[in-house]
Amino acid sequence: MTDRNLTEKVKVELADRSYDILIGEHVLLGAGKHIKSVLPDAKCAIVTDENVAAIHLEALLENLKAEGIEAAPIILPAGEATKSYAHLQTVIEAIIEMRLERGDAVIAFGGGVIGDLAGFAAASVRRGMNFIQIPTSLLAQVDSSVGGKTGINSPQGKNLVGAFYQPRLVLADTTVLDTLSEREFRAGFAEVIKYGLINDAGFYNWLEQNWDGIKKGGKERIHAVATSCRAKAAIVARDERESGERALLNLGHTFGHALEGITKYQSDVLVHGEGVAIGMVLAHAFSARMNQSSPDDTQRVKTYLEKVGLPTDMSGLRNHVKSANQIMDFIAQDKKVSRGNLNFILTHGIGQAYIAKNVPAAEVHAFLTEALES
Amino acid sequence: MTDRNLTEKVKVELADRSYDILIGEHVLLGAGKHIKSVLPDAKCAIVTDENVAAIHLEALLENLKAEGIEAAPIILPAGEATKSYAHLQTVIEAIIEMRLERGDAVIAFGGGVIGDLAGFAAASVRRGMNFIQIPTSLLAQVDSSVGGKTGINSPQGKNLVGAFYQPRLVLADTTVLDTLSEREFRAGFAEVIKYGLINDAGFYNWLEQNWDGIKKGGKERIHAVATSCRAKAAIVARDERESGERALLNLGHTFGHALEGITKYQSDVLVHGEGVAIGMVLAHAFSARMNQSSPDDTQRVKTYLEKVGLPTDMSGLRNHVKSANQIMDFIAQDKKVSRGNLNFILTHGIGQAYIAKNVPAAEVHAFLTEALES
Repeated sequence: MTDRNLTEKVKVELADRSYDILIGEHVLLGAGKHIKSVLPDAKCAIVTDENVAAIHLEALLENLKAEGIEAAPIILPAGEATKSYAHLQTVIEAIIEMRLERGDAVIAFGGGVIGDLAGFAAASVRRGMNFIQIPTSLLAQVDSSVGGKTGINSPQGKNLVGAFYQPRLVLADTTVLDTLSEREFRAGFAEVIKYGLINDAGFYNWLEQNWDGIKKGGKERIHAVATSCRAKAAIVARDERESGERALLNLGHTFGHALEGITKYQSDVLVHGEGVAIGMVLAHAFSARMNQSSPDDTQRVKTYLEKVGLPTDMSGLRNHVKSANQIMDFIAQDKKVSRGNLNFILTHGIGQAYIAKNVPAAEVHAFLTEALES
Repeated sequence: MTDRNLTEKVKVELADRSYDILIGEHVLLGAGKHIKSVLPDAKCAIVTDENVAAIHLEALLENLKAEGIEAAPIILPAGEATKSYAHLQTVIEAIIEMRLERGDAVIAFGGGVIGDLAGFAAASVRRGMNFIQIPTSLLAQVDSSVGGKTGINSPQGKNLVGAFYQPRLVLADTTVLDTLSEREFRAGFAEVIKYGLINDAGFYNWLEQNWDGIKKGGKERIHAVATSCRAKAAIVARDERESGERALLNLGHTFGHALEGITKYQSDVLVHGEGVAIGMVLAHAFSARMNQSSPDDTQRVKTYLEKVGLPTDMSGLRNHVKSANQIMDFIAQDKKVSRGNLNFILTHGIGQAYIAKNVPAAEVHAFLTEALES
């Protein structure tokens, strides 16, 4: 079943902070060896959540032990609520308690929540320890494990507190994704589709034709994950701190974040990737309304997202999303707001996203009002 | 009384994160103009403490207002206890509440506690905002305002949580130091002496001859502050993240931090600079005991620190410091410990400090036992 030759390597080029992402089946079972080759003497704190720990922690601990790597886990509750000041403090104090030093490592072993939280803790303990990511969700493998954004949520908004902090190594085991719920896999896949929509129409075409293969696993899945990582790595290498181009990665996220905020990050109502899916359709529809792209492209995106099983409009959120004003309020606080003007990622068509500055708030408001009525 | 021509500029060379330190009399009254020249459109959050606010805040606010800079203060209790998770969260949430963006600025207006806390908040809000330092204590002007170390204390130890984060501008007004207590001024002066002891015997000689002038103010004080900043800036430019040479700046600090820890950071018992003063004498005495330097140098340092009015041994701490073991326990947790070995900053004489690796713990223990008995 396993073909180790299929393992792909993506190099994230960031000068002295460059690192490799290894993507393939069962790379988790080589974790100790891979970590040792990058950090020969490091002791490790493994930050994980209850769900991941129950399924995969023993295998990782065994593997590290076999390589003579000292490691101990810090196990947190699963869910977005864990990205809080309180849990950040818990993790930091636990790492200090283990007497780890700057040369030791914090391993994030979980999805995006664990990656963001553990990364911020690694950045902050002794002003920066080594950091390793072993992402276990599709979302984390293709998004949060590339580019060094770490952080927690503020009561005033998502991801408002954190650091840019790069890992030393990322291990993305594509077989681990078989343990995700279908819903979680689909939600993560929204971010994969995003890379096609941003600047790679060829990848988007390939994705349209290979959903079944990606779902099943094997080389199609590895290719989808590796292409996504490569796409993000290329953008991040050119604009690490999001002063320009990196904002393209927010395609669908301004609307998506607002919907997540309004639904109070209740994962039974809406998870991040679902918000992004709706947001990407809205971004295409708004672009068409502004005469920047064709309504046919909006329809094409909608059709594919429906096939994947993702939501494509706000109809499922009627109990929460009541008015355009409600959405506008969240958008105003979103960190993509620059000096009071509304910046949006719009598109000229599939694979042709661009950063639109000074978008009139009234246009967005009118568009959302129509979208909510339809 | 004021001679604006006396203003000295120290450039901290850190590639795209380089910045200027302006040192002189009444530079505070040019704050708005200086900030505008670096950040033309930034709104500002001024983080300060109750003591500094009572004396200087109105002048700063007036000055910024006159230049058309929007600014609002965040006023915290004075004292080391403010460098906590709880106050960090308070400051971060207040900055977000003001709706400041990445291009806006956080001004640290106070001593080292305020600088460290506000700097970590600036580093963390939206993963990094602009940061400006207006240090109001001698310690902050010559130490914490140079080099980008920011952070808070952990219940397990001082400065264990934070970030390397550089300011865009530092304004050091030497007349503001006239509002410090004598004790606080002397304590800050311990760090000035440290720069002479590390690698500049000429500066140390000059300091020995000019204590009265520096205390009084004017050009001697400006020279002392500027030379200190220049000395630290040179070291930081070569080793920003303390992988080597920067550790020299910890001369006297390993012992000093332990004494601060044992006395529970109670400022009525011991303040940081006093701990450093005792620590520097201990570092010289330990170096002499290890046959690395002459006991005459230890005596010379002791004599000068006594003239300045700083403590030079642990005799004033008898109610707190009971045994060598107690000190060793704190040293073991100090962040200058590398992979379980004891690293110390020792010296071959005045202006000849060096990093000693693998110092036997038993030697340190024996030395401390003697020092406590004498």
